[in-house]
Amino acid sequence: MITLDRRELDFQLFDVATVDALCRGPFAAYDQTIMSGILDTAEDIAREKFLPHAEKSDRCEPRFEDGRAVLIPEIGEALAAFREAGFFGATFDHEWGGLQMPETLRSAVSYLFFTANIGTSGYVLLTNGAANVLSAFASQDQKTRFLAPLVEGRFFGTMCLSEPHAGSSLADIATTAHAQDDGSYHLRGRKMWISGGEQEISENIVHLVLAKVPGGGEGVRGISLFIAPKYHVKDDGSCGARNGIQLAGLNHKMGYRGTTNTVLHFGEENPCVAFRVGEEGRGLFYMFHMMNEARIAVGLGATALAAAGYSVSLRYARERTQGRSPDAKDPGLPPVPIIEHGDVRRLLLAQKVAVEGSLALLLYTAGLIDKARLSEDREERSRLEDLTDFLTPIAKSWPSEFCLEANKHAIQVLGGAGYTRDYSVERLYRDNRLNPIHEGTHGIHGIDLLGRKILDDDGRCLRMLAERILADVDRATSIPSLAEFAQLLSREVSSTLAATDELVAARSERARSQLLANATLYLDMLGHLVIAWMWLRQALAAEAKAGNGGQPSPYLQGKYHACRYFFRYVLPQCAWMRELATAADDTTLSMPEDGF
Amino acid sequence: MITLDRRELDFQLFDVATVDALCRGPFAAYDQTIMSGILDTAEDIAREKFLPHAEKSDRCEPRFEDGRAVLIPEIGEALAAFREAGFFGATFDHEWGGLQMPETLRSAVSYLFFTANIGTSGYVLLTNGAANVLSAFASQDQKTRFLAPLVEGRFFGTMCLSEPHAGSSLADIATTAHAQDDGSYHLRGRKMWISGGEQEISENIVHLVLAKVPGGGEGVRGISLFIAPKYHVKDDGSCGARNGIQLAGLNHKMGYRGTTNTVLHFGEENPCVAFRVGEEGRGLFYMFHMMNEARIAVGLGATALAAAGYSVSLRYARERTQGRSPDAKDPGLPPVPIIEHGDVRRLLLAQKVAVEGSLALLLYTAGLIDKARLSEDREERSRLEDLTDFLTPIAKSWPSEFCLEANKHAIQVLGGAGYTRDYSVERLYRDNRLNPIHEGTHGIHGIDLLGRKILDDDGRCLRMLAERILADVDRATSIPSLAEFAQLLSREVSSTLAATDELVAARSERARSQLLANATLYLDMLGHLVIAWMWLRQALAAEAKAGNGGQPSPYLQGKYHACRYFFRYVLPQCAWMRELATAADDTTLSMPEDGF
Repeated sequence: MITLDRRELDFQLFDVATVDALCRGPFAAYDQTIMSGILDTAEDIAREKFLPHAEKSDRCEPRFEDGRAVLIPEIGEALAAFREAGFFGATFDHEWGGLQMPETLRSAVSYLFFTANIGTSGYVLLTNGAANVLSAFASQDQKTRFLAPLVEGRFFGTMCLSEPHAGSSLADIATTAHAQDDGSYHLRGRKMWISGGEQEISENIVHLVLAKVPGGGEGVRGISLFIAPKYHVKDDGSCGARNGIQLAGLNHKMGYRGTTNTVLHFGEENPCVAFRVGEEGRGLFYMFHMMNEARIAVGLGATALAAAGYSVSLRYARERTQGRSPDAKDPGLPPVPIIEHGDVRRLLLAQKVAVEGSLALLLYTAGLIDKARLSEDREERSRLEDLTDFLTPIAKSWPSEFCLEANKHAIQVLGGAGYTRDYSVERLYRDNRLNPIHEGTHGIHGIDLLGRKILDDDGRCLRMLAERILADVDRATSIPSLAEFAQLLSREVSSTLAATDELVAARSERARSQLLANATLYLDMLGHLVIAWMWLRQALAAEAKAGNGGQPSPYLQGKYHACRYFFRYVLPQCAWMRELATAADDTTLSMPEDGF
Repeated sequence: MITLDRRELDFQLFDVATVDALCRGPFAAYDQTIMSGILDTAEDIAREKFLPHAEKSDRCEPRFEDGRAVLIPEIGEALAAFREAGFFGATFDHEWGGLQMPETLRSAVSYLFFTANIGTSGYVLLTNGAANVLSAFASQDQKTRFLAPLVEGRFFGTMCLSEPHAGSSLADIATTAHAQDDGSYHLRGRKMWISGGEQEISENIVHLVLAKVPGGGEGVRGISLFIAPKYHVKDDGSCGARNGIQLAGLNHKMGYRGTTNTVLHFGEENPCVAFRVGEEGRGLFYMFHMMNEARIAVGLGATALAAAGYSVSLRYARERTQGRSPDAKDPGLPPVPIIEHGDVRRLLLAQKVAVEGSLALLLYTAGLIDKARLSEDREERSRLEDLTDFLTPIAKSWPSEFCLEANKHAIQVLGGAGYTRDYSVERLYRDNRLNPIHEGTHGIHGIDLLGRKILDDDGRCLRMLAERILADVDRATSIPSLAEFAQLLSREVSSTLAATDELVAARSERARSQLLANATLYLDMLGHLVIAWMWLRQALAAEAKAGNGGQPSPYLQGKYHACRYFFRYVLPQCAWMRELATAADDTTLSMPEDGF
């Protein structure tokens, strides 16, 4: 049975991410008591409304019937409870009916729901994403008509980017938008992989659609952003007739099944009326504004799935007895709980460092967003935004890759039982396999990080990150139990800066394809380094919490040990990846195509 | 669509494993033409009878109805074709109706069936395993009654080891065997995880059951081996009434669904008559004799699943167009096949090295078994058997772990499409997740290798392995294009020998639990080293095949490039694992239990 680990979340939120310090300015209504109360509410709804149907959602996936998507009723019931608690409006301004909470707190709230049931939470993720875009770029009238009901959770949202022939390569989308005399547009085209593209839970669905206005710019410069509602919205805010958007079919997925994934046809049988958001040709820019938060949410989802698996496998390891210690000579001794076996401990520690290291990073990144909002200094705000941009591919990709590994380990702890559908660990592993794929594949984030965010930036953001890491290294150096880790991390940071500088310097001499040939390894390497930093921060927070001289609790000792595990078992893997990536090794590129 | 790669198999079998050299003595009936003909037959049956229902088997898993296991009919039809071709008797002596083929050839034959459909092949695997045990240890009468129909494929077999409370820890089994006056026994107990435990395809099922005779030795010394047929077998070989074995239920698995996995009750409603094989108290020894081959077959299955995924993802990568080269400046250029993208090539190369490196190792290990059989020198035979034993945990575990990774990469190449059930890559990934669990978990093989086969053996077998590796290193050193790899491998071998010697020397000073704390890392490390050796052997074979001076074919160039990939991208990972394992780092052991 999956359990929600509030002790861990509270430690991360209050001791590591020190969310209290953010409770000022627009967040002045919050303090620790209020935040704890919100987490209690979230925990209750997650446990009572989200968790119980997680298995059923997987077993009874959405069905396509008469052009409709039929879901199990528990999904709608859970989302109704979520809506009643006001959580759809978590981070939105009071002006639009939101709770105006710090992104850090919202991440903690989401984490509880994601751990309980990622499939049902998917609808929230998408609705928030759409609302974020409208909040930033829509007109006042569009906000009244579409943003307010999204914030309320009466309408749900989607993001319609990909098409059957253009998954990652958005420059190639073919959906068109034809301007009408009344200022609206008619959309025509087909969209693929649209999560939440059809359901009958919400009163309406607000599709945010990327399309090209004929005669506009080439490639991505020709893309604009449109609002296309499932039902027309009247001036009084009520819903009218259906718009010309058809559900063409459902995708049948390996996991993550509670979230419908659809193929949508726009404007094929009836006209699809849509409204342009912002300026023509800026669609991708607007959408990607929101993508940072969507990507951070993907990382958080991956982390939550691993947390769920960790909780199941940890309990199993404590309860299941099997075998004896290699030190026991007497075969007549009773079998021991498997948590006593070295390799089971390794599998548990590998999960613990992935889950808690990722969670720390995601709350840290959310904290940067909050700090940028709080900052009154334009330059500081810009630095915080740049750092958020820089960390986003890591915050999305490291959890997606290594929390999936964690789910693999959770199955292994249970052995044959983990391979059956009687335990949720096999489902969690299937659910998590999506995360390295959606919202930009693992490979694409590697190119984004090493190409756009390092090579094209002369390594400026990387140095900014290094400064922050080294500030924590300095704090740790003076603490005897952490000095070993401080030194190791400091060395990795120096090596990474030096090797990256060399690559940046070689920029003009080598083809970009070669510079980026091992970008994914660079992404994983820098991810290891950043997560090591997060472990050092957790160890520092545990040290502070334990206070001077007292015996730390086993929980806080566990933080120190997990930090040691990460530094000894994971961080040493940076060297070979860094070497290949920064040497721009061309082994993959020079393979003859018929040699595969 | 999964394709069977005969070119690769032929290269591995005839050029790398040089199976021709084994065609003497008991295998004198074989030559290259005959072997090619056998592979052609296997390929045809695999493609026409096994492959077409692989998806259906997954979708329509076995059902439990009125105490029976109901399977889709295609499984029985495929196995009938397999039986008619005589493949159930592949390696068995002519005396028992077998084809008496080299294990190396049999492995190649199996590989084709495993690639096409692992679930249906599961029944063969188990039947062969049971027949192997009987062939080695059963009495003449038992062989006539049970072995001959297993070899023929009229009866299928199972291996009943685990029980609900004792999965890996066989010393703790509770099934009892009570001697009867006629020399037979009555079994009583419950067995868990019994693959193929019930089906109605074969005329009878020969269960090989581990049980304890009351009053026998303690722990594993109390375990004996019994034959318990589903139907009693009369003196004329025909089947009589049902024996007291009940199907209590089916396990519902994440994948590998075509092979029923059952819970069996022995002797609960009616007496279960059974026959002891060999001596009392030697059950585990007999069963483990057969386990080497079962474990090698698991490694081969893992490899075949990865080969299937590689074939699907390679074809997709050649056909699917998306995006442009990072070097292309013109967004108006048409999109390129994704095989041109660096990271897709990395994902394909990672699959290629896992599949083909594993296949080379499995055929090499099969070759050791064949050579031991051919050898007339007792000492040489004993050395070959020891080396087979030593390599078995690696031949089982490396493919199980890293071919599963390969299946993960296959999904990634397909992106969102790979996550749907429209392509087989998601199924293959689920199927393969079993392999690090059954026939000894990954962790248990680590302990077997580092504990029993290195520490308890003073590293003797490791040195024997090193000699063989260094002989190939010597051959490669004189070939300019391979000298780089020869040097790298030689260095890894030296480091591994030296570090292992230190650990062996420290044996008496440290608790065994600490010596074995990182045994899994040692297993993975030595696996990388052995697979690197297999890549060097493939590169040597490609060099020889290309001949002097001529331009090698793209296929043979691909072998060189894949070798380079393995040496640059995988082999460097040995260092950190070796360091932790041989330093007996106690991070996992010293974690406080309440710190998790």
